[in-house]
Amino acid sequence: MEKMILALDFGGTKHTVGSLVEGSTRWRSVKTAPSGENPNADRDIEIMLGLARSALEGAQPSAVGVSFGGPVDFGSGTVRLSHHVEGWEGYPLRSLLSREFNAGVIIDNDANAAALGEWRFGAGRGSESLFYVTVSTGVGGGWIIDGKPWRGRDSMAGEIGHTVVDPRGPECLCGKRGCVERLASGPYMAADARKMLEHHPAQGKILRRLARQGSGIIDGKTLAEAANLGDDIAVQILARGSRSLGMELGNVANLMNPERIILGGGITKSGPPFWEPLLQAVEQTRLNEVAVQILPAATGDEAPLWGAVALAEALL
Amino acid sequence: MEKMILALDFGGTKHTVGSLVEGSTRWRSVKTAPSGENPNADRDIEIMLGLARSALEGAQPSAVGVSFGGPVDFGSGTVRLSHHVEGWEGYPLRSLLSREFNAGVIIDNDANAAALGEWRFGAGRGSESLFYVTVSTGVGGGWIIDGKPWRGRDSMAGEIGHTVVDPRGPECLCGKRGCVERLASGPYMAADARKMLEHHPAQGKILRRLARQGSGIIDGKTLAEAANLGDDIAVQILARGSRSLGMELGNVANLMNPERIILGGGITKSGPPFWEPLLQAVEQTRLNEVAVQILPAATGDEAPLWGAVALAEALL
Repeated sequence: MEKMILALDFGGTKHTVGSLVEGSTRWRSVKTAPSGENPNADRDIEIMLGLARSALEGAQPSAVGVSFGGPVDFGSGTVRLSHHVEGWEGYPLRSLLSREFNAGVIIDNDANAAALGEWRFGAGRGSESLFYVTVSTGVGGGWIIDGKPWRGRDSMAGEIGHTVVDPRGPECLCGKRGCVERLASGPYMAADARKMLEHHPAQGKILRRLARQGSGIIDGKTLAEAANLGDDIAVQILARGSRSLGMELGNVANLMNPERIILGGGITKSGPPFWEPLLQAVEQTRLNEVAVQILPAATGDEAPLWGAVALAEALL
Repeated sequence: MEKMILALDFGGTKHTVGSLVEGSTRWRSVKTAPSGENPNADRDIEIMLGLARSALEGAQPSAVGVSFGGPVDFGSGTVRLSHHVEGWEGYPLRSLLSREFNAGVIIDNDANAAALGEWRFGAGRGSESLFYVTVSTGVGGGWIIDGKPWRGRDSMAGEIGHTVVDPRGPECLCGKRGCVERLASGPYMAADARKMLEHHPAQGKILRRLARQGSGIIDGKTLAEAANLGDDIAVQILARGSRSLGMELGNVANLMNPERIILGGGITKSGPPFWEPLLQAVEQTRLNEVAVQILPAATGDEAPLWGAVALAEALL
C-alpha cells in the first residue's frame, strides 16, 4: 500500500503543507496560507492543521516531517522559541502533532531542514558533506556531514548568522559587532541603504524609484532588485554584505572542508551583484588545498518543505 | 597473543616513536630524537626507522599509526608537503612504512591525530564531538564529529590557523589579514613583542630580562613565560592573540556546536594571561543557546602520538 508523507513548514510570514507518496519527488498537494496579523503559537498550529486536512484529502499520513522557523530541541521535539511569534517557548510540538495525526513526527529548524532538503532533492544530491546557508531576513545554516545531518550538542549547529567577521564592524542587535547577519541579511542591508540615501541625495536613483513605485519602503527585496538593475548604492551595500558572507564561507571551508556550500534565500536572487563579491571573497579566504563547490539552492523557497519530507522519510 | 601497536610522530623539530600492547594505556617504550640540521624526508624516515627498531625491541607490530606534521592525503596515505622539511611533496609514506614493518599503516596530519588522541585518551573521553586546537609555532585543529574523525573532502578540515578573524588586522604571510595564526601563534606574537620592545624602551622589563638570561632571542616560549610573570608587553600581545583565537572559537561553537573544545600546544601553557582573554572572548561570541566546554589538552605534547595509537587501533 502507498505510504503518504506529510511535510509542514512553519515560516515567519506564511505556513506551507505538502503531501506526497513515499518515493515520489512530486507533490500530491501543496497548500499555503499567510500567518496573519498578531500571530501566536496556537493560531499558527490551527492554520497548519487546516492546511494539512486540506492537503491530505482524507488520507492518513504514515510519517510527518516538520520544518520550524526558529530554534528547536531536536532530541525532545520541542520548540525553543520563535523570534517572530509569541507563545512558542518550550512548545512540545512533536508530541502534539503526533497525537493529532496519529503518526510518527520529526521536527527540525528550517535551516537544518533546508540543508537536508537540498542534499536529498536539490543541489546537494550525491555529496557526502555540505553546508547550506539561507540569506534572507536572517542568515542561518545547516550541515550534512559524512552523509547525515549534523545538529550539534544543543541542536544549534549552523548558526553562521551570529559569527563575527568584522570585530570593528557595525553593531548588531545581539550586542556584538560585525556579525554575518548584521552585514548580509535583508533588513540590515536595507537599513544601511536607507541611511546612505539620506546622506547622498544624488545617489541611489534606481533604488529611490523602485521604492516610490512599490510600497515606499526599501526592504531586502527592493535592494536586491535595485542592485540587479545597477543602482550604485544598492550594489555597494550588497557587495559589502556578500563579501563578508563570502569571507566567512571561506573560513568555513578551511574549518570543515565540506564538499559543497549551497546558498538559498531571497537575497541570493540578486544576481551578479551578490554572487561575484561573494565568490571572490571565498577564493581569497580559502586555502589553496581546500576545494569547495559553491552552488545556488535548487529547490528554492521549498527547501525547508523538501527537508521536512526527508525528515519524515527517516521514520518509514 | 598480545598485539603490539607502533605509533610514530613526525614533528617539526623532533621525531618520536612509542610502542604499546593493544588495550594498554601505558607505553612499553618511547624513543625520541631531534630531526637535526638541514633535515629532509629521507633523513626523517631514516631517523624514525632507527627509533622504531629500538622501541620494538625485536617485536613485530600488528598495526602502525602515524602522525605527520603537515598536510596529508588521508585516502591515499601520501604526504602533501611539509612546511619545514624538504622532499616530502607527494611522498607515499603509508606504502613505504607498510613494506618496512610488514603491517597495516594509517597516516593522518598531527592536528587530526591529536584530536583523536585527546578524544580516545585525554580531555575528550566520553564526548560525541570535539574540536582540538594546537597553539604553538602554528595554529591548527582537528575534528571529532558524531563519534569519529571528520577530515573533510580534501583531508583539510580543522585549518583554523588561516581563518580570518580581523580583516583589518595585521598582514599574514599567506597574503590575508588578521588570520588566527597571524595573531595567536608563537613566532608571530614573538615578532610583535620584539617590535613593541623597540618602540617602548621603558616597557617589557621582564621580557628583556628573560631574553638576556636565555638565548637572547624572544620566541613564543619566552613570551609565554614573561606573560606568566606579569610582563606588560607580553601580557598585552598574548591577550590580543588569545582574544582573537577565542573569538574564532566562539564562531566555531556557533557554526558546529561541538560538545568540547580542547586546546593544546606550548602557548596554552602561558596560564591566565592566555586563558582569561580567550574564555572571555568565547563567552562574548557564542550564542546563549550554544554551550561548549573549553578544556586544556590532557595528553599534552604526546597528543599526536596517542592519536597515532588510536589510528592504529582502527586497523586491529
